[in-house]
Amino acid sequence: MADRAQRESQGPREGVIRDAYFVSDSTGITAETLGNALLANFPALTFRRHTLPFVQSPPEAARVVAEIRDRRRGADAPIIFTTVKSPQIREILDDADGVIVDLLGGHLRELETSLGSTASVRAGEFHGVGDMERYFARMRAVEYAIEHDDGQSMRALDIADVIIIAPSRCGKTPTTMYLALQYGLLVANYPLTDDDFPADGLPRPVAPYAERCFGLTTTPLRLSQVRHERRPDSTYSSLAQCTLEIRRAEDLYRRNRVPFLNSSTKSVEEMSAVIMQSMRLRS
Amino acid sequence: MADRAQRESQGPREGVIRDAYFVSDSTGITAETLGNALLANFPALTFRRHTLPFVQSPPEAARVVAEIRDRRRGADAPIIFTTVKSPQIREILDDADGVIVDLLGGHLRELETSLGSTASVRAGEFHGVGDMERYFARMRAVEYAIEHDDGQSMRALDIADVIIIAPSRCGKTPTTMYLALQYGLLVANYPLTDDDFPADGLPRPVAPYAERCFGLTTTPLRLSQVRHERRPDSTYSSLAQCTLEIRRAEDLYRRNRVPFLNSSTKSVEEMSAVIMQSMRLRS
Repeated sequence: MADRAQRESQGPREGVIRDAYFVSDSTGITAETLGNALLANFPALTFRRHTLPFVQSPPEAARVVAEIRDRRRGADAPIIFTTVKSPQIREILDDADGVIVDLLGGHLRELETSLGSTASVRAGEFHGVGDMERYFARMRAVEYAIEHDDGQSMRALDIADVIIIAPSRCGKTPTTMYLALQYGLLVANYPLTDDDFPADGLPRPVAPYAERCFGLTTTPLRLSQVRHERRPDSTYSSLAQCTLEIRRAEDLYRRNRVPFLNSSTKSVEEMSAVIMQSMRLRS
Repeated sequence: MADRAQRESQGPREGVIRDAYFVSDSTGITAETLGNALLANFPALTFRRHTLPFVQSPPEAARVVAEIRDRRRGADAPIIFTTVKSPQIREILDDADGVIVDLLGGHLRELETSLGSTASVRAGEFHGVGDMERYFARMRAVEYAIEHDDGQSMRALDIADVIIIAPSRCGKTPTTMYLALQYGLLVANYPLTDDDFPADGLPRPVAPYAERCFGLTTTPLRLSQVRHERRPDSTYSSLAQCTLEIRRAEDLYRRNRVPFLNSSTKSVEEMSAVIMQSMRLRS
């Protein structure tokens, strides 16, 4: 019994907030992405997150250490996720008395061995400007997405990589923007309104590009909730109207063999991944 | 000499293309982000990247293994970055005869020890839909960004978290969209045109929100190149015009104590990170 009590006292103190830091010599995006993916595995614990980007010199590292120590005030040791590459800066971070999780170091050494090549010593530049080509591609894609949002323009639909079709508020706009910004894809989106259903086939503006269309659907309840945010207590947001529009949209997708997915349980990232896989836009 | 020749023959064969896989039980975003950050440290090597998302069952894992083995055809062992959590699926991936880099497993065990808590066993759901609150915040932010792009609407500027101001083609639009989509921030942007310079102070529409303004600048050469993409051989894209506009914009920022950064050597991610840090929008 004493043994068990002892073990329990060493367990996590649930409800206690633990500080988690993402310390990077660059933007902090890689540290945040992987650090958050790791923390998501401990849903019973509560973390207070802090991103400390652009830590590129020993004085900046010392400032970060002071900040971390200062915030602690007797609490549990903070978790410090880091992607900093300089061994000198890494060593200074040890002074923060936290649990250091070095997200790149160990893997870099594994890769050096298996690739038979030494890692370059510059600070992480993965999220750096890279080539101008990629910059242009993203800029063009974002502008294309803005121009073609919500069926505003039918110009240059022939160069679209994907045309997302769906009733209003099924998630077209954020998904479109994510695909444009992250992958430089040219994505248009087109709203299905009551006018689009009587006819056979796809709505006229997108019909010539049927094989590039991808549909979104959702559940009537979810759609009603989301529409309620925009126009409370309207016909537009009523469960009856939402049920009708979703049934019609799904019929349209099936009739025209347009692949589609239900957005109600998916994040923008998941929808984007499914769309790219389904449309073979990913190598 | 023999020794050296031997070492060289074991070194990486530069110019040879190596396959790199990102295998995930979810979207593949975490695997891509960290995997690419790691590969960026080997600039002399060339990688052919393949993302294999939603590998959630042994049959799917077996299909992935077949695909990897099939593509290899005698080439060097592929690098397989994985964030798959199921030990059963992880084990099947070993059959692909690649260099497996397990991006989560080791760190999860470190965290289990330091947090005194066991990681949950579900497939990675970090990029899952999460709470509806976050979904709404992103959707609202993206719509706000579209509505306020390029000074199109001056409505509700009072609720903007940031107003990005800059001459045309300095990177306002993609940076705005990134901040909206990744962080759910309300970001407007306003183009500085010739009309905005004669007056003292900031352009009238944004003047009441001076403390929320952030400026972008670039180099005249870069601006001229970027503008050339849109309107080749125009006054708009001439080096003289670009030089003039940038000098005026920087004067305006300094006169009005608007923080600003030079976008010419920065990616959209870096600009976003700097803006959030400068405007204290990150905890």
